[in-house]
Amino acid sequence: MGIARAEGYELLALTFDYGQRHKIELESARKVAEHYGVKDHRVVKLDFLRDIGGSALTSDELSVPTEGLTDEIPITYVPGRNLLFLSIASSYAEVVDADAIFMGVNALDYSGYPDCRPEFIESVQTAIERGTKKGVEGHQTVIEIPLVHWTKAEIIRRGMELEVPYELTTSCYQGAAEACGTCDSCRLRLKGFAEAGYTDPIPYKSEEQ
Amino acid sequence: MGIARAEGYELLALTFDYGQRHKIELESARKVAEHYGVKDHRVVKLDFLRDIGGSALTSDELSVPTEGLTDEIPITYVPGRNLLFLSIASSYAEVVDADAIFMGVNALDYSGYPDCRPEFIESVQTAIERGTKKGVEGHQTVIEIPLVHWTKAEIIRRGMELEVPYELTTSCYQGAAEACGTCDSCRLRLKGFAEAGYTDPIPYKSEEQ
Repeated sequence: MGIARAEGYELLALTFDYGQRHKIELESARKVAEHYGVKDHRVVKLDFLRDIGGSALTSDELSVPTEGLTDEIPITYVPGRNLLFLSIASSYAEVVDADAIFMGVNALDYSGYPDCRPEFIESVQTAIERGTKKGVEGHQTVIEIPLVHWTKAEIIRRGMELEVPYELTTSCYQGAAEACGTCDSCRLRLKGFAEAGYTDPIPYKSEEQ
Repeated sequence: MGIARAEGYELLALTFDYGQRHKIELESARKVAEHYGVKDHRVVKLDFLRDIGGSALTSDELSVPTEGLTDEIPITYVPGRNLLFLSIASSYAEVVDADAIFMGVNALDYSGYPDCRPEFIESVQTAIERGTKKGVEGHQTVIEIPLVHWTKAEIIRRGMELEVPYELTTSCYQGAAEACGTCDSCRLRLKGFAEAGYTDPIPYKSEEQ
């Protein structure tokens, strides 16, 4: 959101309530949207992803791994999640005639989710161009993924330059008031702050940082 | 559903409650799913499409055209609808490990919706292959669109051969107990039955058929 603002866009925010374990991010999203004074902030309820399960992020029966990243796609992968998010964003973009959809996916310091990779985003871009009225009429909505090739350290550094309110954000998959520090998402975030030479302003359970 | 059954698939059905004017189709879907004895039938609630509007099918403020088809994409186009439907189907297909997603889009006797065209479906196929765990692991879910290049008459004829329960189906955009006979969807359906040489078994308001 900091990057889109810096590029001069008027901002509208979409947040997805998909039954995620870390529902606390909905409140963070509200605070960040308020911080940036977005024109509109919509929270889209997607009960279906929780209903069908198949991920440690949407099922109470599967645990979030805390042993660190592996070469496998982890159990925290949510089936088809980013395609669903982008579909909804594309419908919304068409109705409000938005020029761009900003998405913070990263395919470098990441968990290996296939739907965070640029080749996936490119194929969705093609689908939006071919499948929407706005697209076939030549007024494209462009999916912007500025963070995709950055290290987490580069992301943190750029955010610091842009005065991103990191204290309002959350990344932990466990969703407690204090971040766990051991899930993949915490590990990647902490690595980013450490390598960038900053201290993460959010509270952690123990002294992992 | 008749075609998928004839090809030997075990059937699971997805229906979308997206605030459509013709909500009556949800009941038809239930009856058709029951007729085919599907293993599971899920009705996915998508309030968001109604919330954002932008279509005569999801807004009470826009009327459904009754003057016949034109060269323009009509106001009944629902922004990004089929991308959203296919996204959800792809998430579900991944969790249940389905081999195929069947979709009844047609790009010949149709209303010019961009998201009914084969080139759009192909791009979604690519997105599913690149963006899902199932896809990158090489076990593709294939989007099957058997009707895409058929005339409505060919569709009706094939359905008759397969003993599709047309009396349980609905097409009218107005969503009343009796079909209007004048919206684009009724016109296309009636054209199909007429050219195929059959009588449509569902009730119509007047004698348009």
